[in-house]
Amino acid sequence: MTVNYSTPSRENLYPVAGVRLGITEAGIRKLNRRDLLLIELAPGSRAAGVFTSNRFCAAPVILCREHLRSGDIRALVVNTGIANAGTGAPGMAAAQASCEAAARLMGCSARQVLPFSTGVIMEPLPVERIEAGLPACRSDLRPDGWFDAAHAIMTTDTVAKAASRRLDIDGRKVTITGIAKGAGMIKPNMATMLGFVATDACVARPLLAQMVREAADHSFNCVTVDGDTSTNDSFILIATGQAGNAEIADASAASYGRLRDAVTAVAAELAQAIVRDGEGATKFITIVVEGGSDRTECKQVGYAIAHSPLVKTAFFASDPNLGRILGAIGNAGIGDLDVARIRLWLDEVLVAADGGRHPGYREEDGARVMKQPEITVRVDLARGAASASTWTCDFSYDYVKINADYRS
Amino acid sequence: MTVNYSTPSRENLYPVAGVRLGITEAGIRKLNRRDLLLIELAPGSRAAGVFTSNRFCAAPVILCREHLRSGDIRALVVNTGIANAGTGAPGMAAAQASCEAAARLMGCSARQVLPFSTGVIMEPLPVERIEAGLPACRSDLRPDGWFDAAHAIMTTDTVAKAASRRLDIDGRKVTITGIAKGAGMIKPNMATMLGFVATDACVARPLLAQMVREAADHSFNCVTVDGDTSTNDSFILIATGQAGNAEIADASAASYGRLRDAVTAVAAELAQAIVRDGEGATKFITIVVEGGSDRTECKQVGYAIAHSPLVKTAFFASDPNLGRILGAIGNAGIGDLDVARIRLWLDEVLVAADGGRHPGYREEDGARVMKQPEITVRVDLARGAASASTWTCDFSYDYVKINADYRS
Repeated sequence: MTVNYSTPSRENLYPVAGVRLGITEAGIRKLNRRDLLLIELAPGSRAAGVFTSNRFCAAPVILCREHLRSGDIRALVVNTGIANAGTGAPGMAAAQASCEAAARLMGCSARQVLPFSTGVIMEPLPVERIEAGLPACRSDLRPDGWFDAAHAIMTTDTVAKAASRRLDIDGRKVTITGIAKGAGMIKPNMATMLGFVATDACVARPLLAQMVREAADHSFNCVTVDGDTSTNDSFILIATGQAGNAEIADASAASYGRLRDAVTAVAAELAQAIVRDGEGATKFITIVVEGGSDRTECKQVGYAIAHSPLVKTAFFASDPNLGRILGAIGNAGIGDLDVARIRLWLDEVLVAADGGRHPGYREEDGARVMKQPEITVRVDLARGAASASTWTCDFSYDYVKINADYRS
Repeated sequence: MTVNYSTPSRENLYPVAGVRLGITEAGIRKLNRRDLLLIELAPGSRAAGVFTSNRFCAAPVILCREHLRSGDIRALVVNTGIANAGTGAPGMAAAQASCEAAARLMGCSARQVLPFSTGVIMEPLPVERIEAGLPACRSDLRPDGWFDAAHAIMTTDTVAKAASRRLDIDGRKVTITGIAKGAGMIKPNMATMLGFVATDACVARPLLAQMVREAADHSFNCVTVDGDTSTNDSFILIATGQAGNAEIADASAASYGRLRDAVTAVAAELAQAIVRDGEGATKFITIVVEGGSDRTECKQVGYAIAHSPLVKTAFFASDPNLGRILGAIGNAGIGDLDVARIRLWLDEVLVAADGGRHPGYREEDGARVMKQPEITVRVDLARGAASASTWTCDFSYDYVKINADYRS
């Protein structure tokens, strides 16, 4: 099931001037599945990205990093079914070949193509199926292709994830539209499994690189489903520059802040959609850790709670067995944490203080909150002014079922 | 279910001279359950322990650390049902009161009593039930009480864990017998949930402290069920000195090494029993990481594999989706890991080399090994001479069921 999320309608996903998208069924791993996406960018578009920190990163991730360094990007090729990770030298050759195939079709160089793959790890990528499918993708290219593209990149996702925003900058209408995929192997360190956000705003290249990092830190880098950072995580921000606004070239300008906030809002909506559609999820949990010395330790505590199988199964059972949250906080690796000062809330209910259960806490209050489909856990570390949010889901029979069955 | 483990018979658990054990049903959290254990140590016994690294450590853990510093221990009191962790100042008072109650009965000081609790976190310990139950425990004290004691400390355990060894030191027969409990919230950082091992050998106090650390490092500190380090982990080694051997006072003596190895063997048998009885376990997995720069990074990689929900569910499904193991290795946090040099075996089957799937690997070989109830994963990091083993289990529907139902 999905917790309070459904894919926006086709009409609510605004085209971005300078971007066209086309899909096909290339039969990469299974037949009769939309599994290949081509995104065309108009000349002059700029792109920046953040990628997985997994040392076994996929061949396409390595190529993306290289190609982003070398200049203007004209096309993105995305396949599902096979991740092309843990595939050694043949995997690099396959990723390179798919860029070359797209470059021939689009009349650009292979270095102007970004490749992305998602699916099973350590199996060879059938690049000939990508080469065979790309002409159909090109024929399908449309400015309003976002809705179909969101569907073409799904793997264990049960709903397609997409989001769109419009705002005015310098009196010009600016559009931001994005899609993402992911449901398991989700604990992005740089970004989620795959996320693509495009705007027609004009942004200077170094600022675009800064914006993608800032947006990732407050969106994809705040979610976790199972703590498994994928080999293929990629989040790409594209700016086609066709909205007609004056180039945003100063990070302290109001226009930079407003565009970054809107991009972050789109990215956060996509990131939260991934958790709402997390494998087997029945609950959406927001963990707010405040009063930390720095943001890093707040994230550490947030992830310690979000990754504890005991906490996650208690949420699934709607059981206010909240001592498990204290146990997880104690395991966050903060050596000088003073547990006597910590306070813990479930929504507005104060659960723990002074090193133990709050005297005013009543089990029925905890039970009432635990039954809700959306729950906020708030922790005050009482040692500073920093804070951080983490979004996660519960851990159900269906997570085991989905991951025991996947591939088969 | 339990993977290839059953409790040794009463006759195979040898009494340890100087140790008597007694149990009762004290009704601490539920009626009609053996939930209180008293262990009496003869005068002159020595004890040493290692404890959880969880910052929210339980009140009894804090008291144990204090009491072990102050001298000879005469009694241990162990209750199940309530962990007395996350209970603040009232929890400390309750732990202290249970020591005082035992001290009155046993004619010693409260500082000569070690308290242990295991069960639900953040609920108050009904110390009056411990006080009421202790006289029955005292009446039940027997040298051959190990078998019943192993049962009295169970919570979600499905089998009692116990082990016994005998060896000769200086021509004297020396006995080692131990019990342990734990099935979930298992990723000991210092020791397991609860482990008690006693020997009648005579060992100098500082060497006993060294021996308990060395034994823990190669037994309880090698196992993980769910990565959740408990608030109550305690591993206690007792030496009553009644075997008549010359005091072992030199860590380089052969007698020290032989006793340590035998104690470690008992502790490892108990630690592996915890994994074999891990919540919902259907498979017992040994992860051997070799070729590391140091033991720490080998452990890091071992835990990264052992904690990945995706790897654990693949084992449950007997699905050789082994790219997930590469993904977990890549996530171990070793920044300069050269993935092109790593090799991965499943039992004797070489699965991955040169950054990808080994050309000789056949899916049916992987599938054959994955079906076994006991599997060894071997990883060669090819960057040094260090190695480390980790023991873990798979992740099944029943783990979710057990932890969604616990407490209710």
